[in-house]
Amino acid sequence: MNKMLLQLGINAKEAENTMRTITTDQKNQVLAAVADHLIASTDKLLEANAVDVANAKQNHMPEGLVDRLMLSPERIEGMAEGLRQLVALEDPIGEVTGMKKRPNGLLIGQKRVPLGVVGIIYEARPNVTADAFGLCFKTGNVVILKGGSDAIHSNEAIVDCIRESLKACGITENAIQLIADTSRETAAEFMKMNEYVDVLIPRGGKGLIKAVVNQSTIPVIETGTGNCHIYVDESADLDMAVNIILNAKTQRVGVCNACESLLVHANVKEKLLPVLAQKLKEKHVEMRADKEAHELMPGSVDATEEDWGTEYLDYILSIKVVYSVDEAIAHINHYNTGHSEAIITNDYTNAQKFLDEVDAAAVYVNASTRFTDGFEFGYGAEIGISTQKLHARGPMGLLALTTTKYIIYGNGQIRR
Amino acid sequence: MNKMLLQLGINAKEAENTMRTITTDQKNQVLAAVADHLIASTDKLLEANAVDVANAKQNHMPEGLVDRLMLSPERIEGMAEGLRQLVALEDPIGEVTGMKKRPNGLLIGQKRVPLGVVGIIYEARPNVTADAFGLCFKTGNVVILKGGSDAIHSNEAIVDCIRESLKACGITENAIQLIADTSRETAAEFMKMNEYVDVLIPRGGKGLIKAVVNQSTIPVIETGTGNCHIYVDESADLDMAVNIILNAKTQRVGVCNACESLLVHANVKEKLLPVLAQKLKEKHVEMRADKEAHELMPGSVDATEEDWGTEYLDYILSIKVVYSVDEAIAHINHYNTGHSEAIITNDYTNAQKFLDEVDAAAVYVNASTRFTDGFEFGYGAEIGISTQKLHARGPMGLLALTTTKYIIYGNGQIRR
Repeated sequence: MNKMLLQLGINAKEAENTMRTITTDQKNQVLAAVADHLIASTDKLLEANAVDVANAKQNHMPEGLVDRLMLSPERIEGMAEGLRQLVALEDPIGEVTGMKKRPNGLLIGQKRVPLGVVGIIYEARPNVTADAFGLCFKTGNVVILKGGSDAIHSNEAIVDCIRESLKACGITENAIQLIADTSRETAAEFMKMNEYVDVLIPRGGKGLIKAVVNQSTIPVIETGTGNCHIYVDESADLDMAVNIILNAKTQRVGVCNACESLLVHANVKEKLLPVLAQKLKEKHVEMRADKEAHELMPGSVDATEEDWGTEYLDYILSIKVVYSVDEAIAHINHYNTGHSEAIITNDYTNAQKFLDEVDAAAVYVNASTRFTDGFEFGYGAEIGISTQKLHARGPMGLLALTTTKYIIYGNGQIRR
Repeated sequence: MNKMLLQLGINAKEAENTMRTITTDQKNQVLAAVADHLIASTDKLLEANAVDVANAKQNHMPEGLVDRLMLSPERIEGMAEGLRQLVALEDPIGEVTGMKKRPNGLLIGQKRVPLGVVGIIYEARPNVTADAFGLCFKTGNVVILKGGSDAIHSNEAIVDCIRESLKACGITENAIQLIADTSRETAAEFMKMNEYVDVLIPRGGKGLIKAVVNQSTIPVIETGTGNCHIYVDESADLDMAVNIILNAKTQRVGVCNACESLLVHANVKEKLLPVLAQKLKEKHVEMRADKEAHELMPGSVDATEEDWGTEYLDYILSIKVVYSVDEAIAHINHYNTGHSEAIITNDYTNAQKFLDEVDAAAVYVNASTRFTDGFEFGYGAEIGISTQKLHARGPMGLLALTTTKYIIYGNGQIRR
């Protein structure tokens, strides 16, 4: 193994041991100190970021990505605010649940503990650096960051700040380490460091996530894409339906919980679709409709097979007419990405059926898919939204960065 | 992709949809029917198994493995009994937990659901075939089995029985499918079928588990090896210590929760080690001791560095003298495999420290490591013992084969 990576791994394991004894008070003190120090270092951070931004522009990075890369005093304030909010959240570490006495007298319970060493692989978004540190640190985890090469100067400056604050608080600086070498080869090696890294979380677009899932031998928490559907049942309140569809499609288009595809029961298509088409047009949403919907939606274009499986992340909506809740469920389970799905209905049986049978992280009755979010669900912080089924599914709060261990109190028990 | 595998995947996804609506009564009916049918098919199963056993002997398979491969009327009765026990267990599927009203009126809860399609990769142990089916079926999962080539005739016969029972009960036969092609190439392809398989569980030795972890792009539940330690603190009741060490080392040696390494505080080495050496000798346990322990244990040999990291699964024990609970914890966290670790002590602070700081799935005070087991922990069934930190850690009961989805009841909520 690459010597630099090996050293990082050894450092992380050492830091992990000291993190097992850290108290919530100590963690909160560090989080507050880092927040203050980031703001006090605004000039330094902006200077480092300016180098990245200049390089990015020279390399013709698309404008949207340059915007995500760019820091400002407000954005630095935002990073600090995120850390301060973590201070206020309850520390999940140390809780013991389900403690029970077994017939042989053993007292067995499960204690919540950190995962250990968390690897984060992300793209050119410097705010993820502070954000990921805060979430991992509050849960007692050591973090190794592998950010995009385009943000390396910004990331180094932020990590320096954090390490300085850790040192000032008397906590091991290796609670956070940044992989300075941003090459693909190093990333590939990092993803196979099972001996040193307990879990890998990719944060970024589809391509990054796929690359990590395919290459990593370390367990991965997959945060995913969302091809989210809304199904309007024949018993739906159509005003409510229009309201929810517009919200889920247009309130923010570039996000994973936005609606990408609409299914409408044939018995309400004539009442709903012309009205909806008008509203969607006002919001500049391109409509890609199947034959039946197309006839009722002026301005729509024909959908292709590809449309049913596409997450647009844009002002585009695919529309299909179906003849039953069963057809809607089958279509969704075939094309969805397991993120968020909604039914608009006033029928009790169909509502329960949809909740039971749709396979997704979050299934809604009569509400916008846009609520699938750690803050909206009341977790106070979010690491991402898991679309896999192991460990965590749906919006992930602090708990997703923890595991449990069994603790057993005996008085000499042996197995017969 | 291999056409045969693709068809298996498609079949499994179809079966998954029907499994979402199956009731506990239906599941229990099938489990009981399979149990009866296996016993009624004893002759057929023994006949198929005889072919495997004859081939294995011709291929000079080691005796211990032939024994694991071999079926008998008693072993078939055992498989049936395992399925009947599952009938009596509570069905975890469908429970809704943590349902809470958010400030905007949304009612959000988590519903326990099956993982979906579970892949099991295992070696030449036909009993795993019935066992894995039972656990997966009780939790509403569809299972695809990839057994070892040495057991193919036995596995086919068992799967035929199960599918016949499913059909007789009116449930899709594709709730279980066996991969008939036992080649490595097919196994390698199977491990990359992320679109069709939700989780992969390897059941077998170290080599098999490592191969699956390294090759699979599907999330894996790793059931692992156990380099388990017992640390005898200076305040320990030494009679209790001897009792527990002998139990953990010799009650059954070939299992992952057996003790492989002993750490003894220097202040009790003279009282404990000579007595212990005598007892271990009586049980024919080879002692591999560090220099200090060696002097006090007649008949012991010198331990090498390699011994500290070795899971013997045999009548061998490594022994080391340490000078503090901290040294014991550091040694364990360096060499252990995250399975089961025990301290024998009467010191409150050291007991709590050991429970807090040792990084393992199960940490004991004053009890044998041999208790790390789904049945001993009261789960009534066991899929395996997870030594990884994601999803499930320690003995895995039925819950480990489930996930949750958020269900949300609204009345028109949109996001602002």
